Amino acid sequence: MNQTPPAGRHFLQIPGPTNVPDRVLRAMDYPTIDHRGPAFAGLGRACLDGMKTIFQTTAGRVFIFPSSGTGAWEAAIVNTLSPGDRVLMFETGHFAALWRKIATQFGLVVDFVPGDWRHGIDPAAVESKLRADATHAIRAVFCVHNETSTGVTSRIGEVRRAMDAAGHPALLLVDTISSLASIDYRHDEWGVDVTIAGSQKGLMLPPGLSFNCASPKALTASKTAKLPKAFWSWEEMIAPNDTGYFPYTPATNLLYGLRESIQMLVHEEGLENVFKRHDRHAEAARRAVRAWGLELLCLEPREYSSALTAVLMPEGYAEADLRQVILQSFDMSLGAGLSKVAGKVFRIGHLGDFNDLTLMGTLCGVEMGLAKAGIPFRKGGVDAAMEYLTAEPRPTAKQAKAA
Amino acid sequence: MNQTPPAGRHFLQIPGPTNVPDRVLRAMDYPTIDHRGPAFAGLGRACLDGMKTIFQTTAGRVFIFPSSGTGAWEAAIVNTLSPGDRVLMFETGHFAALWRKIATQFGLVVDFVPGDWRHGIDPAAVESKLRADATHAIRAVFCVHNETSTGVTSRIGEVRRAMDAAGHPALLLVDTISSLASIDYRHDEWGVDVTIAGSQKGLMLPPGLSFNCASPKALTASKTAKLPKAFWSWEEMIAPNDTGYFPYTPATNLLYGLRESIQMLVHEEGLENVFKRHDRHAEAARRAVRAWGLELLCLEPREYSSALTAVLMPEGYAEADLRQVILQSFDMSLGAGLSKVAGKVFRIGHLGDFNDLTLMGTLCGVEMGLAKAGIPFRKGGVDAAMEYLTAEPRPTAKQAKAA
Repeated sequence: MNQTPPAGRHFLQIPGPTNVPDRVLRAMDYPTIDHRGPAFAGLGRACLDGMKTIFQTTAGRVFIFPSSGTGAWEAAIVNTLSPGDRVLMFETGHFAALWRKIATQFGLVVDFVPGDWRHGIDPAAVESKLRADATHAIRAVFCVHNETSTGVTSRIGEVRRAMDAAGHPALLLVDTISSLASIDYRHDEWGVDVTIAGSQKGLMLPPGLSFNCASPKALTASKTAKLPKAFWSWEEMIAPNDTGYFPYTPATNLLYGLRESIQMLVHEEGLENVFKRHDRHAEAARRAVRAWGLELLCLEPREYSSALTAVLMPEGYAEADLRQVILQSFDMSLGAGLSKVAGKVFRIGHLGDFNDLTLMGTLCGVEMGLAKAGIPFRKGGVDAAMEYLTAEPRPTAKQAKAA
Repeated sequence: MNQTPPAGRHFLQIPGPTNVPDRVLRAMDYPTIDHRGPAFAGLGRACLDGMKTIFQTTAGRVFIFPSSGTGAWEAAIVNTLSPGDRVLMFETGHFAALWRKIATQFGLVVDFVPGDWRHGIDPAAVESKLRADATHAIRAVFCVHNETSTGVTSRIGEVRRAMDAAGHPALLLVDTISSLASIDYRHDEWGVDVTIAGSQKGLMLPPGLSFNCASPKALTASKTAKLPKAFWSWEEMIAPNDTGYFPYTPATNLLYGLRESIQMLVHEEGLENVFKRHDRHAEAARRAVRAWGLELLCLEPREYSSALTAVLMPEGYAEADLRQVILQSFDMSLGAGLSKVAGKVFRIGHLGDFNDLTLMGTLCGVEMGLAKAGIPFRKGGVDAAMEYLTAEPRPTAKQAKAA
């Protein structure tokens, strides 16, 4: 390190963990309290209730684990399934592949539909796969809502309709780790049985909390699921949660932070505005990428992610070199290409606590980094993004209510 | 307010108070300790000694007041002068005029050399004024190093040489409130007698601390100065300061923050790199302004400020409208035009805890704001700044040492 220690704020523009707002940091900065004492119940209930709003559920039940998102995947599996159960999964990217690995480790039999990492889940493939399963051997369909590795958002509402069209009773399990509270997601309306989420992306918290949101059907399934469980057991959570407590020690200070982020997202900005803000920044980022003459990894406009943008490097140029130049010269972290797209793709995170000028700083960093790293590109990406942001009014709470 | 509560960080780009680094906020976030107890002495000494390095003095003595910068002006006056003393001042802008007012309130007789608010102090005028004062009636020359209202930096080294050329014994008092720890400033080398400073600009602290740095000659003058003083008295500070204490209650938590900012500025980034960083960002900002077809208020390239850039509005357009659009649409605060340039000038602060991408976010906010407010301008300012930042390597500690 012969770099000057950086002045100013680091630009953390990986697609999560995201920038934690000062208010959330401050909210966590209080003494840890007795998690069995009377003061705790209000905190526990505020978090559990607030998360129902964020999952857009009234019928569902929320579980909060002191773990990272991978744990919430495991929890979803061990609470609803039994060894040898068949499940249907889709190769949308790196995180879908990781989820398949966990399923295999628990003895599930996975039908993994191959994908090109440039599209989301094909609802027609869901329907044909389920129609072909006349005996209803498939117990669950696993989907990643927003593939953090590719910047592709699958259309979960259409997946649900495909399942209904096939008349298949499989459970629908959806990973929203990089979409919840950034991209519109509707647990009840889309008939999802288990939603999986984490604290470190749209919820604007440090890593360390993960979530399941379970439908009544999932809760019923949990009564007969035979995979062994203790830490992840929904059943042991239910009674203490009803009064705002947890069966074991919760991550109290992260819950302080969650209460504050719920306040900001739900009660101040409003979820609808949060989604519009993310949509707007994503569109500005895509316009920049196109103006640079670079290619988006996502090939389906209906599946563009509002949380991140994955960009293909020109042939013969390694993304790691670009990211290193940008980190060293401009103190910004961008996401690497993962597994199948390693070396070929870099990812711009534009989710969480983020605004127009931070987006513009980010896009300036990419444009200057492309120049400094000697990557062939056209200037004008920043200009294209400014053009869009200037023309497009920032959504206001008032407008959102009128809409 | 029908605006959505803003997401992401506010861009505080007034020319001070500046953005306080997270590290400094955290450093202040410890319990207030006994200011007479043994633990305090180390804190007091670290601050007093560190500030000597920042003032670039070995012969001088530093005084720290729990006050804003205006108090440090008053302290400089009451410790060195007597009622009826004649002083020489220069109308470089709003803050020079405010300082004149304070001098008048203490019964000093001010010779106020008029200025056009677009130039710094003319060293030739200093020399001729002092040569004309054959009886040495003028007791002090008051200068503002960096005029926060105009973005003009006076050449204090040349002012000193002018005083020496005139062979005049007047004290030299210099306000560095918006330059210290941002723009190269040399208390000893330039023979300054009292330097005045504040915490809320280059030192990256909240407002609430102010400073005097006094030369041996100023300390001698303080022994006969007859203006009444208690709170501001240097004399009462000296003995307690020698062991790291203060005669009255100091602003302990701000001193925690100061110790941390000294660590960052002096021991980590290094003052030389801090100055280069500010010079570089200022040059990028000026290139943007010129590319927009707008006019810099400062007319003398040798006097361009590295802390802020003041920009003239096109005739017939009010700066307040532009700043309002930028605040509402892009959540950025810029500096207003003050007194004589009210309505005509806006100011971009680029000092303190600041980096390339925050500068670019700032300049994007100005460019988009100009468009949204319907101000006549040419696009391309952001591009011009990126061009400069890409070509110009970020100075590193290693390079600085080699240079």
